Amino acid sequence: MARSRTRPPRRELRVGTYARLDRDRVRRIGVPEVILGQGKTVPHLLGILRALAARGEGAIVSRPTRSQLAALRTQRRAGLPIVFRAGDRIVRLRGPLGAEYRPGRVAIVTAGTSDVPAAEEARAVLVELGLRPVLAHDVGVAGLHRLLRAVRTVERYRPEVYLVFAGREGALPTVLAGLVRAPVVGVPTSVGYGRGGRGEAALTAMLQSCAPIAVVNIDAAVPAALFAAQHFLLSAPARRGRRAR
Amino acid sequence: MARSRTRPPRRELRVGTYARLDRDRVRRIGVPEVILGQGKTVPHLLGILRALAARGEGAIVSRPTRSQLAALRTQRRAGLPIVFRAGDRIVRLRGPLGAEYRPGRVAIVTAGTSDVPAAEEARAVLVELGLRPVLAHDVGVAGLHRLLRAVRTVERYRPEVYLVFAGREGALPTVLAGLVRAPVVGVPTSVGYGRGGRGEAALTAMLQSCAPIAVVNIDAAVPAALFAAQHFLLSAPARRGRRAR
Amino acid sequence: MARSRTRPPRRELRVGTYARLDRDRVRRIGVPEVILGQGKTVPHLLGILRALAARGEGAIVSRPTRSQLAALRTQRRAGLPIVFRAGDRIVRLRGPLGAEYRPGRVAIVTAGTSDVPAAEEARAVLVELGLRPVLAHDVGVAGLHRLLRAVRTVERYRPEVYLVFAGREGALPTVLAGLVRAPVVGVPTSVGYGRGGRGEAALTAMLQSCAPIAVVNIDAAVPAALFAAQHFLLSAPARRGRRAR
Amino acid sequence: MARSRTRPPRRELRVGTYARLDRDRVRRIGVPEVILGQGKTVPHLLGILRALAARGEGAIVSRPTRSQLAALRTQRRAGLPIVFRAGDRIVRLRGPLGAEYRPGRVAIVTAGTSDVPAAEEARAVLVELGLRPVLAHDVGVAGLHRLLRAVRTVERYRPEVYLVFAGREGALPTVLAGLVRAPVVGVPTSVGYGRGGRGEAALTAMLQSCAPIAVVNIDAAVPAALFAAQHFLLSAPARRGRRAR
Amino acid sequence: MARSRTRPPRRELRVGTYARLDRDRVRRIGVPEVILGQGKTVPHLLGILRALAARGEGAIVSRPTRSQLAALRTQRRAGLPIVFRAGDRIVRLRGPLGAEYRPGRVAIVTAGTSDVPAAEEARAVLVELGLRPVLAHDVGVAGLHRLLRAVRTVERYRPEVYLVFAGREGALPTVLAGLVRAPVVGVPTSVGYGRGGRGEAALTAMLQSCAPIAVVNIDAAVPAALFAAQHFLLSAPARRGRRAR
Amino acid sequence: MARSRTRPPRRELRVGTYARLDRDRVRRIGVPEVILGQGKTVPHLLGILRALAARGEGAIVSRPTRSQLAALRTQRRAGLPIVFRAGDRIVRLRGPLGAEYRPGRVAIVTAGTSDVPAAEEARAVLVELGLRPVLAHDVGVAGLHRLLRAVRTVERYRPEVYLVFAGREGALPTVLAGLVRAPVVGVPTSVGYGRGGRGEAALTAMLQSCAPIAVVNIDAAVPAALFAAQHFLLSAPARRGRRAR
Amino acid sequence: MARSRTRPPRRELRVGTYARLDRDRVRRIGVPEVILGQGKTVPHLLGILRALAARGEGAIVSRPTRSQLAALRTQRRAGLPIVFRAGDRIVRLRGPLGAEYRPGRVAIVTAGTSDVPAAEEARAVLVELGLRPVLAHDVGVAGLHRLLRAVRTVERYRPEVYLVFAGREGALPTVLAGLVRAPVVGVPTSVGYGRGGRGEAALTAMLQSCAPIAVVNIDAAVPAALFAAQHFLLSAPARRGRRAR
Amino acid sequence: MARSRTRPPRRELRVGTYARLDRDRVRRIGVPEVILGQGKTVPHLLGILRALAARGEGAIVSRPTRSQLAALRTQRRAGLPIVFRAGDRIVRLRGPLGAEYRPGRVAIVTAGTSDVPAAEEARAVLVELGLRPVLAHDVGVAGLHRLLRAVRTVERYRPEVYLVFAGREGALPTVLAGLVRAPVVGVPTSVGYGRGGRGEAALTAMLQSCAPIAVVNIDAAVPAALFAAQHFLLSAPARRGRRAR
Repeated sequence: MARSRTRPPRRELRVGTYARLDRDRVRRIGVPEVILGQGKTVPHLLGILRALAARGEGAIVSRPTRSQLAALRTQRRAGLPIVFRAGDRIVRLRGPLGAEYRPGRVAIVTAGTSDVPAAEEARAVLVELGLRPVLAHDVGVAGLHRLLRAVRTVERYRPEVYLVFAGREGALPTVLAGLVRAPVVGVPTSVGYGRGGRGEAALTAMLQSCAPIAVVNIDAAVPAALFAAQHFLLSAPARRGRRAR
Repeated sequence: MARSRTRPPRRELRVGTYARLDRDRVRRIGVPEVILGQGKTVPHLLGILRALAARGEGAIVSRPTRSQLAALRTQRRAGLPIVFRAGDRIVRLRGPLGAEYRPGRVAIVTAGTSDVPAAEEARAVLVELGLRPVLAHDVGVAGLHRLLRAVRTVERYRPEVYLVFAGREGALPTVLAGLVRAPVVGVPTSVGYGRGGRGEAALTAMLQSCAPIAVVNIDAAVPAALFAAQHFLLSAPARRGRRAR
Repeated sequence: MARSRTRPPRRELRVGTYARLDRDRVRRIGVPEVILGQGKTVPHLLGILRALAARGEGAIVSRPTRSQLAALRTQRRAGLPIVFRAGDRIVRLRGPLGAEYRPGRVAIVTAGTSDVPAAEEARAVLVELGLRPVLAHDVGVAGLHRLLRAVRTVERYRPEVYLVFAGREGALPTVLAGLVRAPVVGVPTSVGYGRGGRGEAALTAMLQSCAPIAVVNIDAAVPAALFAAQHFLLSAPARRGRRAR
Repeated sequence: MARSRTRPPRRELRVGTYARLDRDRVRRIGVPEVILGQGKTVPHLLGILRALAARGEGAIVSRPTRSQLAALRTQRRAGLPIVFRAGDRIVRLRGPLGAEYRPGRVAIVTAGTSDVPAAEEARAVLVELGLRPVLAHDVGVAGLHRLLRAVRTVERYRPEVYLVFAGREGALPTVLAGLVRAPVVGVPTSVGYGRGGRGEAALTAMLQSCAPIAVVNIDAAVPAALFAAQHFLLSAPARRGRRAR
Repeated sequence: MARSRTRPPRRELRVGTYARLDRDRVRRIGVPEVILGQGKTVPHLLGILRALAARGEGAIVSRPTRSQLAALRTQRRAGLPIVFRAGDRIVRLRGPLGAEYRPGRVAIVTAGTSDVPAAEEARAVLVELGLRPVLAHDVGVAGLHRLLRAVRTVERYRPEVYLVFAGREGALPTVLAGLVRAPVVGVPTSVGYGRGGRGEAALTAMLQSCAPIAVVNIDAAVPAALFAAQHFLLSAPARRGRRAR
Repeated sequence: MARSRTRPPRRELRVGTYARLDRDRVRRIGVPEVILGQGKTVPHLLGILRALAARGEGAIVSRPTRSQLAALRTQRRAGLPIVFRAGDRIVRLRGPLGAEYRPGRVAIVTAGTSDVPAAEEARAVLVELGLRPVLAHDVGVAGLHRLLRAVRTVERYRPEVYLVFAGREGALPTVLAGLVRAPVVGVPTSVGYGRGGRGEAALTAMLQSCAPIAVVNIDAAVPAALFAAQHFLLSAPARRGRRAR
Repeated sequence: MARSRTRPPRRELRVGTYARLDRDRVRRIGVPEVILGQGKTVPHLLGILRALAARGEGAIVSRPTRSQLAALRTQRRAGLPIVFRAGDRIVRLRGPLGAEYRPGRVAIVTAGTSDVPAAEEARAVLVELGLRPVLAHDVGVAGLHRLLRAVRTVERYRPEVYLVFAGREGALPTVLAGLVRAPVVGVPTSVGYGRGGRGEAALTAMLQSCAPIAVVNIDAAVPAALFAAQHFLLSAPARRGRRAR
Repeated sequence: MARSRTRPPRRELRVGTYARLDRDRVRRIGVPEVILGQGKTVPHLLGILRALAARGEGAIVSRPTRSQLAALRTQRRAGLPIVFRAGDRIVRLRGPLGAEYRPGRVAIVTAGTSDVPAAEEARAVLVELGLRPVLAHDVGVAGLHRLLRAVRTVERYRPEVYLVFAGREGALPTVLAGLVRAPVVGVPTSVGYGRGGRGEAALTAMLQSCAPIAVVNIDAAVPAALFAAQHFLLSAPARRGRRAR
């Protein structure tokens, strides 16, 4: 059974006046809170990570900014137990995240090479949670043979959820959702220029899909990964008891 | 075990020059094609339904227009085996749809009374597919006690997916996703006036949610229902191995 | 050789104070001016058609409004030599249009049944110009086998230009442009609801296409047909030299 | 009684050809003009501050740019009596502002740590005006217990106005406005990425709120603070009668 | 002392499966829930009002649709104790609303005659709540003398909050906020055509105001009225301490 | 000398509680206030016109709605001295408007027949003010010879201002502004469908014009006419006379 | 009489393969072509200026980029006869521009200090053309006394056109157009943050103005200046007759 | 006969895990895949080019980023057989592209000097494919004589397709399409500031064109070039039959 380390965290952890960490979240919803780096001041982010590290807890930071990354590298040299993932787009504070899942596969499929970095974020989060994604990159829609061959390979692993990354016109999730027996989540990526560029066309096209897909925001690889992870929740203690209610 | 009648349809059914029905879809992706009424001419829609009825196959039509409804009522009197659901927002051509699902619950939750009609569409589709949704309406976010009580009631049924309908500011899926251990799909409804009205604010807010939710388009209750249904797919031949894990 | 009747019109025809018909256009650019019904008052439209009919010239009217159609039907009974095409979306004033083309095929392909009415407009205009389009409707992208079979059939006619109609997510022109050896022009149709509905998503997605396609505006079937027709221009006097190459 | 120093300024102060300072404003509307740094040239901003300092008057500058801050630091070393607040997002020219208020509390509540810097601007302005805000940061909506506990703490101070800062989906003001007996002003912050990012979704969602809130623009912390301050105006001569009621 | 009748309602009232009325809201936030007619089915709206009437409770309905108004008129003849206000834009179910306020004035100012109907909604709600608004209509900004005279008249009543209605370019709240010693809330109205029409320009301009105003959505007269009413809340038990300061 | 009748109106005329007519405007700015019909209730509009008629003053109403027109026709039969202009898009209450202008020509040029109705509004207003516009309709940009011939004809009248009406791509004002020695004002018309339709593309294109033109809103023919009229204000020769007032 | 030097330029001047200078424009339309720096490569811009300088002709460059400015400074040291105006936002190549105007005043009025740099561009262009603008800066709308005093001062010069610069909510042109007897052109400036920031709100508000103003694009100070200059055109040969009236 | 070197590539080339090059595309659709640099990581782009170079195949890279260009320059020194085109906007990996075309001309026309760099991209791609474009730059629409002369020159080469580049108001393709007997493709360029700037107005105006043009996205010079190239396809095996007609 896949599990991502143990010890569930306590209810609320206050850091300075500026943060109240919701340490009960993983118990309530089955996935840990991922800390959004972007938008936080460097001192705030460091304060949060140090407080967690001091308690031996783990964490995931997404979308760190350049100045945050610089500060984090300094902190790592000073002993903060962090590692960088997905080309520095994900920062992992070592320590238990408290999430446990039954085995099963999430497929991560990308339309083009430019979508790979965003997909790597999702992969890194799933791996940190103890899940094992299956990958197929640069599958395109302008060359159907490429696509069909890649789908056949991925389907061998019988994925239970698909995360499909596409920028530009964002057609891939629609095409894929006509081919596979599992829920497809479209993840538009900020690829493309001109009108509808930076993922806008892809997002809107996915919302208009003639196939039954669900969508997350542009580049929202991490929310997509967490959404996928919830499909593999054990009805472990926290849900065993629910029965009893 | 829940199942929605039998006999899987054949590959492609041509109707006039204007339609090629993808009768293999339910086998490939586990949910049947739902025919979008809106946008089709009345003769085209009737032609499609008559062709299916002639072969004894079932179908679901969503978003029928007024003139389509009028024509369909005439046809029903003339013997076309159809029934109207969800306040005439869904038309069901009686006959097998070819989909089979394991038992399990989809929760349908609405923020306000105005969201109920859209939610009824999703409910009707799920019921036609043989699934049994759990409902909680008018749950709000401006009265947290209402919300918490409703969630507690719904959770007793241990739903595996949530479809959460909200218009206006669209906050409910975010709040719910902080409370339950199952994937939450936000369905923005075309409720609200002024800037961001007709579901625009709700959709954008759901895309920006600080909780890990996925989203469908405004009023896309039917795609949401199909997406949810895929979570309950039986391992069909093509997926037999999944069981073995 | 295909040709759409003869006698080229003269330079400028003034109708009342409100219209100056550019009767030289077909000579200059190889396709006749199509009169946009929508937006004109009924008296203005009738005045223009009567003036042309009085000189024995032909014309095409696109997007007639309801009140224009009603008035035109009355006029027809009164002897105005008009016929209605494409479900009344095109009105043809009988008489020469002045355009001549070499033989060759335009392919008209639609993603869904809802796109057929727009495609019929393009077909009607091409036929009136003396060209012979090849059609394939409801070809989809969510069922690739349907699509591949349809493309194979159409390709037998070796079309030199493709007009590809799609609403919703607008993926079909992109997929087709990865399969065929001819220029593909995407025509977004006003199909779809919610964000990006009424053709907005389709248009933007086509603009972002990862394949080399060109695009016209939403429902701009008639401009697309004229653009396609220009590919089959005979070397008229002004272009005599081209032949010689 | 709270008051922010004395001596009301005179009517209009001309600075070069480029500025006419409205020194009567605090008397007319009860709050001083805050100078928007962003958009002004460095010489213009310095000219204005030097002219005020020369008369011994105070001022507040919001949203100073980098080059303005650099120039202001140089000026401070040269004797300009300024201090920097809220992480350099507010510059205070020491000296009387002319505003006086009765005691009373403004609550400043933020949804997340990323909203704190904007909230600090509001806090700084209120403090400079002599008011004493109550703070609760990182209150979230995805963890209702956090939220309810924080609201209970803040309510102890019986705030008469709430300024509620939220980015992303902007749900917090709506939820709060269902819990407290005071006017709630939503302040969207430029937090979030993708569609609706940089505060766009938050603003629109607040405008669509199903609770009776008022809203200011994205990151408009300073206007929000001034709007709140007006609730604590003492009955100045022109409003003497209000007391008597 | 102004008060709008008595007996506070109980916690939650369920109506059919489709509504849970939050009867505790007036106690929690000081203003009653106003039922948004628009978007509700006629049976749902009638069901809600009948359930409230059966308990002798009052209610306010805003933005009733035509079909709702027709049904309500029938119901009134059948004994439902309702009255129509503000040109049928507000429906009042007679009976206590549970809100009580200290005396005080809200100013309602409109830029043009076209803004009067929206302003009438706010006035009707305030009057039903027991408050006494002061009015000044068609005050303009293109004729400053009109404006200054009107402001002088209104100011005599020493209003504590201003609700300022404007469509088109929406300049009036900005100009007014430079003249009066009270919080100004801008209410954009759906007046104007072309780009920025239907209130869009007015809303955006108010958000960009160079004066410290807060804003509600286009035509959101009722939320504006409730927001204003909260300024006159009596210290209810839960807020007893505020008095003591 | 052109003049549009005499007797200047007095300062402010109050009608009911809902209107304050700015009767000083024509003296202040040289053009009378035009009453915007659209958005006003029928009783309000009638009230205003009756009050003016009672004093023997004239007025112009623009954009009357259908129900206003119906009511006005009834009133006319009952003796209200009104006439309808420009296909009922302008209503003229007979009586002096108070404006006087020196002679001079405004050119009104339209790109297509569909722009004529909007242009007729401008023409009607100018004529009512006593000015004499020069017209050229359906001048196009896709047929340059048409355009050049029309410009030559118009130029013979030496117009001092051009009002150029265009929908669709809105290119005409740009092309014209490269040909004539007078200020060109672009008036986008709500002609066109799909993306950028209803005048949106025309407006934006005019704002981006590579020629020095000024622009009014979509279909804003009346403001354009008033703006043009101000060029012909008498303050005698070089405006010397204004002093004398 | 104001005039800006003499010798009219010849028809077309080709520079490399990349530019055809329209040297006939000043004769045709009465104002010279202003070269838009932004968007041109440095070699292209230098090539154009050198070609003009070689013929002893003058030119105006607007919106030079940083790299263009750097290159131009180097060229100036190398002898290119240029001067920098309006804080380097305008570059003047010395030499005749060919435009001549009768005397008369353009008023340049700004809402705030932040609008001054854009207004300076217009002033510089007018001055180079030989016209003499009247200025009033930081006139505001939130302090009407400031505004009225400034208008009174400016009106003494009897300006024949007003260019009114405003960012944020863009109310000033509307207010001014209610006070003065001359055409008012609104120039929105890219001042403001959040929704509607960077001039978007100002532009839209001006388009919606309830007063008869015309508008140019955001920061389009130079087109506004040229548009204003055309009001002062002398009757050139082609317009000789106008004098005679 | 024009041809761009020989040896057609094989089906699919996998590079690392991140790229599957579609080497069959040129055979299927007649134009090679152009690699979009923008959006790819430097290692991904280098990996792809090295893999192709290792097989002796050629490639075209469009929109390289600065860091990609820096890395590519280093690689070139290390022996990667690349050349830079169109001011470094196109990178050519030497080697066969596999495309062959019959002779014929594509016209490339630009509205202004600022459009030249984008047009240069199209020219470079066409030249690399073995086609010979005809150029006319800075043709304008504000000076019709310039335009007419340039069109006459270009028409001498009897181009079969026009690629027309324009930013700002984007009027040129519309005007040109009224003058020439060949399909016109509009290419909006990211030229212009303010509302509709960066090519937005140009794109929308082209979509609204009253002439029959097709359009590509803003700055999409390379897709436009490929679309044009398809007009010159030789009848390859799969299309052999077309000849026979």
